Amino acid sequence: MSSVRRKRAAPDVAVVGTGVIGRSWIVVFARAGCQTRVFDSDPKQLRKALAWLEEDLQLDRKDGFLSVEQSAAIRRRITLHRQLGDALRGVSYVQESGPEKMELKQALYQELDRQAEPKAILASSTSGLNMSEIARGLNGAHRCIVAHPVNPPHLIPVVEVLPGRETDPQVVKRTAAFLKGMGQKPVLMNHYVKDFLLNRMQAALIREAVQLVEHGVTDVDGVDAVIRDGLGLRWALMGPFGVANTNADGGVREYFTRYREAYIEGMNDLYPTPSFDDAMIERLGRATDKMTGRVPRAKIRRWRDRMIHKIRALKERDSPS
Amino acid sequence: MSSVRRKRAAPDVAVVGTGVIGRSWIVVFARAGCQTRVFDSDPKQLRKALAWLEEDLQLDRKDGFLSVEQSAAIRRRITLHRQLGDALRGVSYVQESGPEKMELKQALYQELDRQAEPKAILASSTSGLNMSEIARGLNGAHRCIVAHPVNPPHLIPVVEVLPGRETDPQVVKRTAAFLKGMGQKPVLMNHYVKDFLLNRMQAALIREAVQLVEHGVTDVDGVDAVIRDGLGLRWALMGPFGVANTNADGGVREYFTRYREAYIEGMNDLYPTPSFDDAMIERLGRATDKMTGRVPRAKIRRWRDRMIHKIRALKERDSPS
Repeated sequence: MSSVRRKRAAPDVAVVGTGVIGRSWIVVFARAGCQTRVFDSDPKQLRKALAWLEEDLQLDRKDGFLSVEQSAAIRRRITLHRQLGDALRGVSYVQESGPEKMELKQALYQELDRQAEPKAILASSTSGLNMSEIARGLNGAHRCIVAHPVNPPHLIPVVEVLPGRETDPQVVKRTAAFLKGMGQKPVLMNHYVKDFLLNRMQAALIREAVQLVEHGVTDVDGVDAVIRDGLGLRWALMGPFGVANTNADGGVREYFTRYREAYIEGMNDLYPTPSFDDAMIERLGRATDKMTGRVPRAKIRRWRDRMIHKIRALKERDSPS
Repeated sequence: MSSVRRKRAAPDVAVVGTGVIGRSWIVVFARAGCQTRVFDSDPKQLRKALAWLEEDLQLDRKDGFLSVEQSAAIRRRITLHRQLGDALRGVSYVQESGPEKMELKQALYQELDRQAEPKAILASSTSGLNMSEIARGLNGAHRCIVAHPVNPPHLIPVVEVLPGRETDPQVVKRTAAFLKGMGQKPVLMNHYVKDFLLNRMQAALIREAVQLVEHGVTDVDGVDAVIRDGLGLRWALMGPFGVANTNADGGVREYFTRYREAYIEGMNDLYPTPSFDDAMIERLGRATDKMTGRVPRAKIRRWRDRMIHKIRALKERDSPS
């Protein structure tokens, strides 16, 4: 967890839906200094989210990422609400992380639009639904927008920001500015495309990765090593274009001009979609069991979280300019 | 540059060819304690490599990655040779990084096989040529193998190890063990596939990345942000299978079973190979110019190198188990 950012006038925020994504958003907002009003229609889910939150804050204190005072300040900014209307009172930004079903989202946005403050932004964590459809026919369609995070948003800053057909351009700007203020990295999408940006690029990599295993070119650990001890070390710092730009003295122009034919041939040789049958999934299961050994998944996840925190801290302290 | 590893019996090594890849290999071997005998048929190239090496050691001292003594010890282990036979004398491992032309490689391997010690391994840095073809008809075809590094190998540990048709399985094992001893991460390939592993996965990502820009879904900085502030933060730690394995409580089995249909649909929707025409390359050039601003490329590269060093140090100090 990054350092606690204090804003002079951090706005009040509502978090609607407290599954894995929603509860991580609570940390983002409360850490940035926002009064964070949390709603879930399921009280059991709400209790689970609170338990997770307490544990996360405790681990962050243990790892030295938060002082006792910082942790207590974050906790004080969070209030839980059983009524949606209570959670929405006085907030200027709503982050919705409900179930990924179009009919449920549409019903929820009707309620949000009816009960939220007139100027509040209604942002959805949806990873694939189209806001043009979710907000169709709503009076407040102009203030509805997708703000899709990466899991977990309190550690990974990218948020894909995608307006619907009726979204006001001012709402797009305000959403991006707000998220930046929260310490996130909003990435604007100009129009809808299935699965958005991140999941498309991830799928492109996984498609090739699964096929390299399927065709017996290497094993699961081999594929993973190529990323974690190879490409991933650069991609934690720069995207594919930034990397290409450092790969030749003349930058991307020289790099892609020189290797254009090789890239085109290589891309044409990439594998198609694998079958992903049960046998392949079981093969991946056995291989990853072997890779992780006896280390429990919770321990690996905490290590991942801790390391992402540390890598981000390195990047904040040391930049190329 | 990682800490200087001292091996009790680090073997003598020859580096043949001192372009960008070859000179980085010199650091790998000398740092690991090997007497490193360097040959290039072009004396100008040899002088350039030496100048780069001195500068790299100096920067590493400045950044506190090497002490003066360590740097001097590395430098003492390196000798330059004008005659191939001199460079090969007494060495048990040869890392060849010559030009990527089949006829040149074949001619070079004839010489290497004729002049190297009988038991020496002859490893090629080739990024795409097939060792079955390079070593065809050689007496020593059994000891010829591909060991393709990522640029630069003294910072990025992955090495793709790929035997030719006639390569002795013992040579495969010895090569992998030797590279591990050097602090690298050998990844075994079971058979030849165009562009090997890393470049295929990189091409898969770049194909989608270029198309997302081409189709105006987002801009160059948006694509890069999704990687450097998103996926790359996880991929510096775990490959795609390791990541998937932490994404569900039941590991990859649960994750890929749950999302199999979504992945298949998503993969089928990915873009085909882009045209990569001059207009697109110029567009990428302008966007990356804007992204990097006035920061000189050399400064960005040094930052990249420094940061990779630091991320690797984090990973060495903190593991999930």
